[in-house]
Amino acid sequence: MASPIDRLVHYLSQLPGIGEKTATRLTFFILRQKPGYAKELSAALADLHDKVSLCRRCQNLTEQNPCRLCADPKRDAQTVLVVETPQDLLAIERSQSYRGQYHILHGAISPLEGVGPDDLKIAELLARLSGEGLAEVILATNPNVEGEATALYLMKILAPLGVKVTRIASGVPVGGGIEYLDPLTLKRAIEGRR
Amino acid sequence: MASPIDRLVHYLSQLPGIGEKTATRLTFFILRQKPGYAKELSAALADLHDKVSLCRRCQNLTEQNPCRLCADPKRDAQTVLVVETPQDLLAIERSQSYRGQYHILHGAISPLEGVGPDDLKIAELLARLSGEGLAEVILATNPNVEGEATALYLMKILAPLGVKVTRIASGVPVGGGIEYLDPLTLKRAIEGRR
Repeated sequence: MASPIDRLVHYLSQLPGIGEKTATRLTFFILRQKPGYAKELSAALADLHDKVSLCRRCQNLTEQNPCRLCADPKRDAQTVLVVETPQDLLAIERSQSYRGQYHILHGAISPLEGVGPDDLKIAELLARLSGEGLAEVILATNPNVEGEATALYLMKILAPLGVKVTRIASGVPVGGGIEYLDPLTLKRAIEGRR
Repeated sequence: MASPIDRLVHYLSQLPGIGEKTATRLTFFILRQKPGYAKELSAALADLHDKVSLCRRCQNLTEQNPCRLCADPKRDAQTVLVVETPQDLLAIERSQSYRGQYHILHGAISPLEGVGPDDLKIAELLARLSGEGLAEVILATNPNVEGEATALYLMKILAPLGVKVTRIASGVPVGGGIEYLDPLTLKRAIEGRR
C-alpha cells in the first residue's frame, strides 16, 4: 500500500455507502483538522474490539459483563424482549417504552444468505429461559421476511416450554400517511385492529 | 466519553456528511468486521499527520520532501500550474493533460470566510518564481467567486515579474448539455470561442 493517504482512502472506502470519492474527501478533511482529531479517531478504533465484547446474558455489545442493562436491578426481570441487532435495542431504549430484559439474536434466519438458527444466539436464549424464570418472551424481530421467519421459528421452539410468547404489533406508523403505505402494512393494520 | 462505541460514533459524526445515525451504522459495521479491519484503519489514521507533510517546493501533501512530482526529472521544469487544493492536483494528474510543475495555494481568497492572500501559499510561489526560472504560470483556481478573485490577485502581483501568466479555459464541459448549463458558463463559453 503506497502512501498513508492512499491507505486511509483504501480502508475508508470499504465502509458501507462510502465510495472512493467520498473516502478521498474524508481523508483530506481529516488532514485539514488538527492532528489530535485523527489520533482520537484512531484510538477509538483501536479500542473498539479490545474493549467491547458480548454480554454473557443478553448478548448485547458491552464493556462490562453482564452489561449495564442486565445488571440494572430496577428493570423488570420477568420479561425478555428479543431483537435482531444491538441497533434495534438502542432504538427501543430511546423510545423509553420498555423496562425489561433484552436478548440479541445477532441476525435473522435467512436461507438465501446461509443464516440458519444455529448462527443466531438462540441456544443462549433457551438457556436463559430455563435458568432465569422468565414469564414472557416478546418477539421484536423486524416485520420482514427474515424477521417473520425467525419469529415463527422461535414461537415453534418456545411453545413446549410453557412461557408466554408475544409478537410486537405491526401496523401504520404514527405520523405515517395511510395513502402512501404498502398493502401488506395496511393488511396488518386492519387485521390487528383492537 | 462513555463507551468505546459512543466514542467512535462521536468522532465519526464529526466528518462532513456523516450524522449521528450514519456514524452509528458505520460503528456497528466496523464491529461486525474482523478486528484486523479496525486495527488497519486505526493505524492508517495514526500515521496520517506523522508521515504526511507539505512539499517544500509545491506545497503538496507528501511523504518525501521534495515530493514525487517535484523530484521527477521528466516533468517540464519551466511551467507551473497553480491550484487551490491537493484534490485539484489529483484530478489534473488523473486527466493526464499536464506534465509540468504544480503549486498548491491551500485555499482561495474569500473575504467572507476571512481568508486573505497571506493565508495562502503565495509567498512560496513568488519565491519559486525568482529561484526556479519558470517561464509560465497557469492559474487553475476554480471558476467561482473565490477562485476568480484569487486568479485576479495573482495576475496583478505576477504582472511586474515578466513571467507569462495564463488562466485555464472556462466553458461547456465535455458531455454537458448546453440546455442545462447556467448562464454564466454559457457566457464564458461564447466569450472564449476560438
